[in-house]
Amino acid sequence: MKTIQILSGGMDSVTCMHYLVNILKHEVKALSVNYGQKHKKEIEYAKYQCDLLGIEHKVADLSAISDLLGKDSVLMNKEKEVPHGHYEEPQMKQTVVPNRNMIMLSVATAWAISNKFDSVVYGAHFGDHAIYPDCREEFALQLGKAIKLCDWQEISLYRPFIKKTKADIAKLGSEMGVDFTKTWTCYKGEEIHCGMCATCIERREAFYLAGVEDPTEYSHNALSTEELVNNNWRIS
Amino acid sequence: MKTIQILSGGMDSVTCMHYLVNILKHEVKALSVNYGQKHKKEIEYAKYQCDLLGIEHKVADLSAISDLLGKDSVLMNKEKEVPHGHYEEPQMKQTVVPNRNMIMLSVATAWAISNKFDSVVYGAHFGDHAIYPDCREEFALQLGKAIKLCDWQEISLYRPFIKKTKADIAKLGSEMGVDFTKTWTCYKGEEIHCGMCATCIERREAFYLAGVEDPTEYSHNALSTEELVNNNWRIS
Repeated sequence: MKTIQILSGGMDSVTCMHYLVNILKHEVKALSVNYGQKHKKEIEYAKYQCDLLGIEHKVADLSAISDLLGKDSVLMNKEKEVPHGHYEEPQMKQTVVPNRNMIMLSVATAWAISNKFDSVVYGAHFGDHAIYPDCREEFALQLGKAIKLCDWQEISLYRPFIKKTKADIAKLGSEMGVDFTKTWTCYKGEEIHCGMCATCIERREAFYLAGVEDPTEYSHNALSTEELVNNNWRIS
Repeated sequence: MKTIQILSGGMDSVTCMHYLVNILKHEVKALSVNYGQKHKKEIEYAKYQCDLLGIEHKVADLSAISDLLGKDSVLMNKEKEVPHGHYEEPQMKQTVVPNRNMIMLSVATAWAISNKFDSVVYGAHFGDHAIYPDCREEFALQLGKAIKLCDWQEISLYRPFIKKTKADIAKLGSEMGVDFTKTWTCYKGEEIHCGMCATCIERREAFYLAGVEDPTEYSHNALSTEELVNNNWRIS
């Protein structure tokens, strides 16, 4: 298949790309999206991984529309601090970016049509969070039906990891030799991973549950893995 | 209702906005999209109409991604000429912009969520063309279902003119006192309407069929209305 993959530069999408290229043998082009996120350094990691695999990589620069969608999200509003804690803690609702998945998938689909490619892939997984309305199964199914109809040639929306947990992804990536030090997760986008925001906690939990050594350097201010385990990965 | 309207600045969306504001009494904000189209001067007309009605108007600047979608479309590729002729003539396929409707609606929906608005409207009409896959009824229905699910608050996708022909729209706009000289249609985006590209021909046909005087100034090189009528609105 010929596939446009949405590549954030995080461990899920990077592992997914390696899986598509090396296991499923898709012809892949990768699309990263700059929507004005604080952690846009993730895109450097996306580029690194594409260069490694010899894959064409484009960045859709949507930063000009960040004010249309980001005024409330802590991921984009510079006056708001990214909260610490597990995704299931109430303060994490502030990390929602309105309709982000549809926007990214609509642009990826347009690029697929331009290339006469037949599928679009993103790294959604089984553990994607109930706080994100656009991570719901029924949303993805409906959007997939719309994508199938948006051009005369059918474009398929695939989520190869939708039955996998993030721990499964850590394990699979490790088995495929993915260099996780060259992936970026942290919402803060500072020099190194903070280790305490929702997506850092989720990353740490995934490696822990997978029994895979976590090669990530976290801020020395972060709680230790042992403390997090003892607190069931919650902060508050 | 509180509605984000996609406003190109053409006669359909402008009439639709007047209808929403003055007849249906929606609270409206309008969104125009710069996707790198040659005829981006349509956005000036969109702004004029918003100012007239006292409506907030934003322009989503997506020109940075025009290379992802526009390499084949004559609407964006500067090396390709906009063809003359009726929409039903074969050369008009070159005017398709991949997945344009989904991209515009996904951004409008994000802005609706940001504003806690409950609906998104675009000026699709009964005569929208079979050459555009994303003008198909089934596409709009599926995308509407996805939009309904993309946030915790339901967002509805409306097409108030979907049962109206463009002639009906010309008639309705005329009855509401819409100043059609302050709308822009032509794909070429030159000083005045060319009168011969597919969307100019469609505009001229609409006024003619509605029995409404067409106030538009067309290029002196254009065929006359009489010639077009005699040729059943075809060029070739």
